[in-house]
Amino acid sequence: MILVNGHAAETVNALDRGLAYGDGVFRTLRTHSGQPLWWADHYAKLASDCNALALDCPDSTPLQAEVRRVAEAGQGVAKIMLTRGPAARGYALPAAGNCTRIVLSTPLPPHACSDAPSDITARWCTLRLARQPRLAGIKHLNRLENVLARAEWDDPAIFEGILCDDSGWLVSGVMSNLFWVRQDELFTPDLSDCGVAGVARDRLLRVAARLGIRSHIGQFRSDAILAADEIMICNSVIGVRRVARLDDVTWSPTGWTTTFNQALYEDLD
Amino acid sequence: MILVNGHAAETVNALDRGLAYGDGVFRTLRTHSGQPLWWADHYAKLASDCNALALDCPDSTPLQAEVRRVAEAGQGVAKIMLTRGPAARGYALPAAGNCTRIVLSTPLPPHACSDAPSDITARWCTLRLARQPRLAGIKHLNRLENVLARAEWDDPAIFEGILCDDSGWLVSGVMSNLFWVRQDELFTPDLSDCGVAGVARDRLLRVAARLGIRSHIGQFRSDAILAADEIMICNSVIGVRRVARLDDVTWSPTGWTTTFNQALYEDLD
Repeated sequence: MILVNGHAAETVNALDRGLAYGDGVFRTLRTHSGQPLWWADHYAKLASDCNALALDCPDSTPLQAEVRRVAEAGQGVAKIMLTRGPAARGYALPAAGNCTRIVLSTPLPPHACSDAPSDITARWCTLRLARQPRLAGIKHLNRLENVLARAEWDDPAIFEGILCDDSGWLVSGVMSNLFWVRQDELFTPDLSDCGVAGVARDRLLRVAARLGIRSHIGQFRSDAILAADEIMICNSVIGVRRVARLDDVTWSPTGWTTTFNQALYEDLD
Repeated sequence: MILVNGHAAETVNALDRGLAYGDGVFRTLRTHSGQPLWWADHYAKLASDCNALALDCPDSTPLQAEVRRVAEAGQGVAKIMLTRGPAARGYALPAAGNCTRIVLSTPLPPHACSDAPSDITARWCTLRLARQPRLAGIKHLNRLENVLARAEWDDPAIFEGILCDDSGWLVSGVMSNLFWVRQDELFTPDLSDCGVAGVARDRLLRVAARLGIRSHIGQFRSDAILAADEIMICNSVIGVRRVARLDDVTWSPTGWTTTFNQALYEDLD
């Protein structure tokens, strides 16, 4: 089911700036028994991303109600897209208050089900992310870099690609954030210049704080993860997964992924 | 009038990857008496951009026929958007052959009419373009940088903003390409790392070659245009315009803009 501005629909205006320019933001989240998971976190991030692009953000309660309306029975995935709406040609911002709100759901993909393997295989991507601090961290609709990076492989055994920026600093996976543990401390790349600062990433950092695990957000090279005890990727749909293989390098489990993945779903407030 | 995959329509599929990821390319061109101007150039650029993103490009003849179908009486502007089409969630490329083709027209904007002033006022933008060689030159649908740059001013007296990349190299205008003449030679920024290599830019370089004017494509700092004899911007809708003022600096006309603007519309083949 798809809701466009609150009404069941299959289409959007062909003049929407979301289509013309990728002028909007989105969220992908899990639902369970018709309820969005981690709603407070997702709404806070959506509001923050809207603010960064001067987009009007709908209120939390009616938006949450729309997610509930579209949610699958059992477990599923909901997606929210907010765009600057239809407008005449040209980059100049139209008058405010005309945003398009798209809420839709899809069944939970097999790779996100609870019985899916928690260990995954990753590869290094050759594409280098451009550094744009004005857009970094935002889950906006300009995602051609992700599309090009994901197109680098079609081997279904490879679950994720790891990305660096054009200076060689680690950033993230194509569709996930990147973490690793070394000597009982947690590490993840700084996202001031590129990447998406996801809700699962934020929750994982809060989990670490709660567990008394020292965490480091910074600039790291590829050798930092090659020297890690355990490497993890995370996002709101898959939770935390252990990178068991990265191209030709393999790691044995140390238990960190299990610890973090369980804590991620506890009440962190 | 809007044609979506050849049929009159007002909307596109809400699951289109053009909307979800900006996964597509576009063209904006002038029409006159129902005919697209510079069609061979626009089609060649569209095919090149599609190739860079592994998108299927429709054949020239039926696409041109669609532009003719939508074209306004008299003068107008046509826009072509090609996207990777509707698909399930996820960055992985869907099977080929499912692209969405949107062709629409709008009346010629007042600033593009032949009696509009040929002199314009520009400003320096504070936004710095990110350098992404994999996307540079392509007129793709990821245009949030242009949206943010255009949002830096709302003074209607300012026609265009001038952009540099994050290393301070000159790139382009927000919606145009940038040229200048100094000591009877023509200069324009290299677009290997960012910007859109437009059809009008390509034609202007061919005009210079035909006129025996030496042209230079390279990396230039802001002082290069401040020392110019005449600064110009160009695109397919407005042709060539003279930058008479750039923030607090003004230039007197030397005749180059008139020369180039006339030659731009001659048969260059």
